[in-house]
Amino acid sequence: MSHPNNGPNTYRGRYTQPVPTSNLTTEEDDFPEFQPFDEGADTEAAPRSYPSDAGSLSVQNVDMCQQVNKPKHFTTAYDIQNLVVRRGLEFIMRVTFSRPLTQEDDFQLEFLIGSNPSASKGTQVVVTFGSRAGGPWSGHILESTDATLTLGITPTADAVVGKFRTYVAIMVGGGMQRTKRDTSTDLYLLFNAWCPEDAVFLPNEAERREYVLNDSGVIYQGSVGAVSHRNWMYGQFERGILDACIYILDASRMPIYNRSNVIKVVRKGSAMLNSQDDNGVLVGNWSDDFSMGKPPTSWTGSAKILLQYVNTGVPVCYAQCWVFAGVFNTFLRCLGIPARVITNFSSAHDNTGNLKTDLIFKPDGTPDRRHTRDSIWNYHCWNEVFIVRPDLPPNLGGWQVVDSTPQETSDGHFRCGPASVAAIKEGLLCHPFDSGFVFAEVNSDVVFLKRDRYGTLSPYRVDKTHVGQAIYTKAVGSTAPADITHTYKYPEGSAEDNRTMSRAEEYGCERDHSELADTQLSVLISADQCSLGQDVNLLVDFQNQSEFPRVVHAHLAGSVVFYTGVTANHFKDEDFSVTVQPNQIERVILKVTAQEYMPQLGSQLCLHFIVTGQADDQSVSAIKVIDLQTSSLTMTVSGEPRLQQQMFVTVSFTNPFSFPLQNVNVAMEGPGLMSERTRYYSVIDPQTSFTWTEPFTPRLDGPRRLVAVLDCSKLRQVWGVADLIISP
Amino acid sequence: MSHPNNGPNTYRGRYTQPVPTSNLTTEEDDFPEFQPFDEGADTEAAPRSYPSDAGSLSVQNVDMCQQVNKPKHFTTAYDIQNLVVRRGLEFIMRVTFSRPLTQEDDFQLEFLIGSNPSASKGTQVVVTFGSRAGGPWSGHILESTDATLTLGITPTADAVVGKFRTYVAIMVGGGMQRTKRDTSTDLYLLFNAWCPEDAVFLPNEAERREYVLNDSGVIYQGSVGAVSHRNWMYGQFERGILDACIYILDASRMPIYNRSNVIKVVRKGSAMLNSQDDNGVLVGNWSDDFSMGKPPTSWTGSAKILLQYVNTGVPVCYAQCWVFAGVFNTFLRCLGIPARVITNFSSAHDNTGNLKTDLIFKPDGTPDRRHTRDSIWNYHCWNEVFIVRPDLPPNLGGWQVVDSTPQETSDGHFRCGPASVAAIKEGLLCHPFDSGFVFAEVNSDVVFLKRDRYGTLSPYRVDKTHVGQAIYTKAVGSTAPADITHTYKYPEGSAEDNRTMSRAEEYGCERDHSELADTQLSVLISADQCSLGQDVNLLVDFQNQSEFPRVVHAHLAGSVVFYTGVTANHFKDEDFSVTVQPNQIERVILKVTAQEYMPQLGSQLCLHFIVTGQADDQSVSAIKVIDLQTSSLTMTVSGEPRLQQQMFVTVSFTNPFSFPLQNVNVAMEGPGLMSERTRYYSVIDPQTSFTWTEPFTPRLDGPRRLVAVLDCSKLRQVWGVADLIISP
Repeated sequence: MSHPNNGPNTYRGRYTQPVPTSNLTTEEDDFPEFQPFDEGADTEAAPRSYPSDAGSLSVQNVDMCQQVNKPKHFTTAYDIQNLVVRRGLEFIMRVTFSRPLTQEDDFQLEFLIGSNPSASKGTQVVVTFGSRAGGPWSGHILESTDATLTLGITPTADAVVGKFRTYVAIMVGGGMQRTKRDTSTDLYLLFNAWCPEDAVFLPNEAERREYVLNDSGVIYQGSVGAVSHRNWMYGQFERGILDACIYILDASRMPIYNRSNVIKVVRKGSAMLNSQDDNGVLVGNWSDDFSMGKPPTSWTGSAKILLQYVNTGVPVCYAQCWVFAGVFNTFLRCLGIPARVITNFSSAHDNTGNLKTDLIFKPDGTPDRRHTRDSIWNYHCWNEVFIVRPDLPPNLGGWQVVDSTPQETSDGHFRCGPASVAAIKEGLLCHPFDSGFVFAEVNSDVVFLKRDRYGTLSPYRVDKTHVGQAIYTKAVGSTAPADITHTYKYPEGSAEDNRTMSRAEEYGCERDHSELADTQLSVLISADQCSLGQDVNLLVDFQNQSEFPRVVHAHLAGSVVFYTGVTANHFKDEDFSVTVQPNQIERVILKVTAQEYMPQLGSQLCLHFIVTGQADDQSVSAIKVIDLQTSSLTMTVSGEPRLQQQMFVTVSFTNPFSFPLQNVNVAMEGPGLMSERTRYYSVIDPQTSFTWTEPFTPRLDGPRRLVAVLDCSKLRQVWGVADLIISP
Repeated sequence: MSHPNNGPNTYRGRYTQPVPTSNLTTEEDDFPEFQPFDEGADTEAAPRSYPSDAGSLSVQNVDMCQQVNKPKHFTTAYDIQNLVVRRGLEFIMRVTFSRPLTQEDDFQLEFLIGSNPSASKGTQVVVTFGSRAGGPWSGHILESTDATLTLGITPTADAVVGKFRTYVAIMVGGGMQRTKRDTSTDLYLLFNAWCPEDAVFLPNEAERREYVLNDSGVIYQGSVGAVSHRNWMYGQFERGILDACIYILDASRMPIYNRSNVIKVVRKGSAMLNSQDDNGVLVGNWSDDFSMGKPPTSWTGSAKILLQYVNTGVPVCYAQCWVFAGVFNTFLRCLGIPARVITNFSSAHDNTGNLKTDLIFKPDGTPDRRHTRDSIWNYHCWNEVFIVRPDLPPNLGGWQVVDSTPQETSDGHFRCGPASVAAIKEGLLCHPFDSGFVFAEVNSDVVFLKRDRYGTLSPYRVDKTHVGQAIYTKAVGSTAPADITHTYKYPEGSAEDNRTMSRAEEYGCERDHSELADTQLSVLISADQCSLGQDVNLLVDFQNQSEFPRVVHAHLAGSVVFYTGVTANHFKDEDFSVTVQPNQIERVILKVTAQEYMPQLGSQLCLHFIVTGQADDQSVSAIKVIDLQTSSLTMTVSGEPRLQQQMFVTVSFTNPFSFPLQNVNVAMEGPGLMSERTRYYSVIDPQTSFTWTEPFTPRLDGPRRLVAVLDCSKLRQVWGVADLIISP
């Protein structure tokens, strides 16, 4: 943990008071139970308690009215004892006094958050119910029956978010008599997407239900033309998750009074979700060695990760981009911030915010991996949040990119955003935060450079369409993908696109303006989707647009790659020649057998082919990525799908390979249905099966999903899903 | 140190190559001496060395021509063996071959920086001298005499800054034969304020000499009306300092290829100068306990701090704002970036970027320190750099604020800027970096709030002029202060000022808009400057603008404060009453004796008085800060002031107090004259003296300054200065 203090007292003269940064672990007795109206003296010197007059007014009971408040605030699903409400919307409390109130009686509610609460910072709120002025939250007496008052309290729409302590204070002779601290009346206050005055207001109800209330989803992977999807159980309502999200803010030492500001909360979240800098939630690992933790592919959702982090205080091993994005999504939705997971196919990385991704080739046309620094990820996942941006000019609010995957070059600090999607579309890269970096991820040109024998580079091809080919997110109310590329970019080559690109250059993004010789030769690779263990057929089409026949000397290089585009194992090199007649296309079919790639796969499922060709003075190249499809788990559900009624789920799997699978872990979970259960099989022999049945009892109704995932070192990403609808 | 990797291999599939972040410690043999033209195979597989043909061309000598290059590049003052040049300007090299070159001979120069240098990232530069294409740096043969060529090389104006390795490569049969690595030909490349194409171009020569080349300066302190100054020896040319500045970038793990970008370099510098987050250079300490290091007041300049950091790799104890700013200024000027230290008098702090500084008072008018969270620093120091801002709209380049003092609330990360001063003046707070935060430091309103007995706050006075009263920096070519307030703000209350303030509000800065009752009563405190040990006379003027006489019940509170405005010791409370006639001013003179404040001083020299008054329903208050003046050291210089000629300096001091001074440290230095020397006196009795003489030998000519400082727990900030002009 990065602590701002370097010693016990080095900041003594720096702050008038310690900066409150801890919400959950505040001492219980921060307020004296009796506080005399001693206007002059320091209140610290006042006695901590004072005998109240016999016969005077006192508080008998405080009822947080959960049954009334929760449905109105859309917080019923939170599996927590305390009341959870959203700011900017009235909630009610019932206070029962020792006797009916008279005209002379005076009382107030007090809501406190963090240590050293302060009225001027919004961390100590006084709510009054008469003519006397109170704090910014308004209070009304809704009903008065005997000694019981029903009170309506409306937190401001810009209130601090987190866990408040609730007190009732009664004015007695010479002072205020407060109720004792009672943790059962603690109040969780969230951002409110339903409130037009809240910075996270989202006008559309279907979108609010998706982006705030949906606790499961899918994350897209693979590549354009072969999009696959992964289930992710966000589980933001599961037991302990809300406290875990507040714990993350506490662990970040974010001052309590900044937690009213959604821009600061999401930016801090993007820093804290990864372990770099700050011992945050998740440790990134892009190797094949996950022996010190769990493989990124083995998680079913966020809940287990967040609970492990809060219980151990130690970063959880391991994550890759979709894990960072999935857990970040849980954090955001749990706090009430509309959020979704985005997939950018062919995402430019590590190119220092420039609009060039340089791929370098040797004089003979083969990839020069030693000198190539930039990379293109097959896909990259980040999050968007829907918030207003009062810090920016008009029309740049709405969806904002936040990315918690640690990026080496994002200003050297491991966080990213919020960056306005509208600003990215317009090329307005002069606004915070990190918009230039995201712009490059979706807009970079790929520059193919040939390195001559003296070490000098010259460009021979620029591909302006490869990067950011498509940007997907889950559609509202379904598991289909929604293509939101148009929210990030104008159509390639349109007048608006040209305007955006030149504006981006004005704001310092470097682009390639190499003058290239006209090429009359081109090459394209295509292939069908392919399952793990099948042979791959590559269709390589050479097109000759000149008036002369061309003899192309070509080379196919095949390797297994990480989803980051980085080579894991190189397994194939093949030279071939082809003659292409004038204005003709010549197709070459290249077969890559399963025997060639299977031994090299490791845990990767992604094959990468480059064809380079030379004809006289012309060089051509094309790249094809193939994601191998895997088999899936079979899941069946039995029993009556009704709240609080026991049901059963059965997971089964048959090893389709000719080799045994060893050290196999299977995990299963379903938010509102069951928390994570796991099974371990030391070996599954070829063509043998297992069947695993678990009971569960639904806690939440409506459409629900169970997912299971199988994971072992030789086979990852084997999924099963069961959808069911639970009746109330 | 914050390492991005969490294990030896967890990033294997994340990067195509390790990201080069180390400039100084790169292995010596990164290039093979002989590299065959084997176009196809991986160059890694090539033999590392190859016998060259007898009789073939070879390199006999490489001369970096320091005597010619250094004066032209204004780098003569750097106390370093290697050539130091500025980018965008030609430097010359002389290469002597084994025989005169013929038409068939072909050679090139190669400049490399960091590990895994790459032509596409500007970290491997090939310079050619014929028709063959080279890298972006241009090369010309200026002269050819026998076997010796005089070559002119012009690095691009956006080249990477740091330490390059220099190679000469000759084409021999079948490959390139390189010179061996020779550290004496290593080349330091700096930013160039003299080059119009460089992002740090500064048009004015007098300003370049001040802001890039001046290695000493003064930093203003105290308060408006009682400005004092502190000498600071930047020492950017002293031995080891340039390597220390590059070491700081290495320690930050900043990728080498980002070091061409001055925005990234200064932002990284603002993060690395403090130890928070990243084990940077200096540990802040705002207490009175400096037992684990040196008191911030005891430093004479930056050199010792930087050398200690580079030698130990551990943050140096201790700093307060002027130390952070002084050392940061050295870092910036050393790398060639125009920079200056700024002092903002009455600087608003820790108010979360809002335009309100809330000071809370109790019902009886005395300060409520328990509930006051914000603070106003008597002064705060930061830096400005002069750079272009291609990332922002036009006219926002020029001076930019960068601040390395760790600020708890600046986005939770301990760095600040670059923030455009022009954008701050216009209220254009929608641009990076941290402009809203700096805007609040110079523009906040001070809101005086009264806390009623129920805990509710109500404002009773708003002071719109107190914060950012004046902004000073050292004038060009003199030690007088230049008031640059107008570069940050339009005149208070002008139409432009109103436009700026409303624009700032549009961008999310919260302002106070309380409707206050008209006040017809006001109070003002004034006082003369006062030396340590003298009595203080406070002149308190109450003004009654009503038509009725007013009886004011008033209170004086006196305390010793840190320069951050935080109370160290409270020593005086005095009630008094005064009757003020209609439309009159009534002056009350309050005497505070030295006996009252001296025992409470600790190591502070700053007294803080608040007068609060009540008359009927009106509340008034006024604040006065008094910086106590201290005595100084006497310094005399003897000997002939000539380069490389021994001279002597004598420092003397008499304890003016009636108590002994114990554990007294005296330090002295002068860039270009002597590195730091120190003396320790265990006790200096009342009215006794010491005299300390040191020899020194000037290394640099021109106007030079020696400073000495005396420091002990009872007396800090005792200075002496000797100015001298060294002839060549």
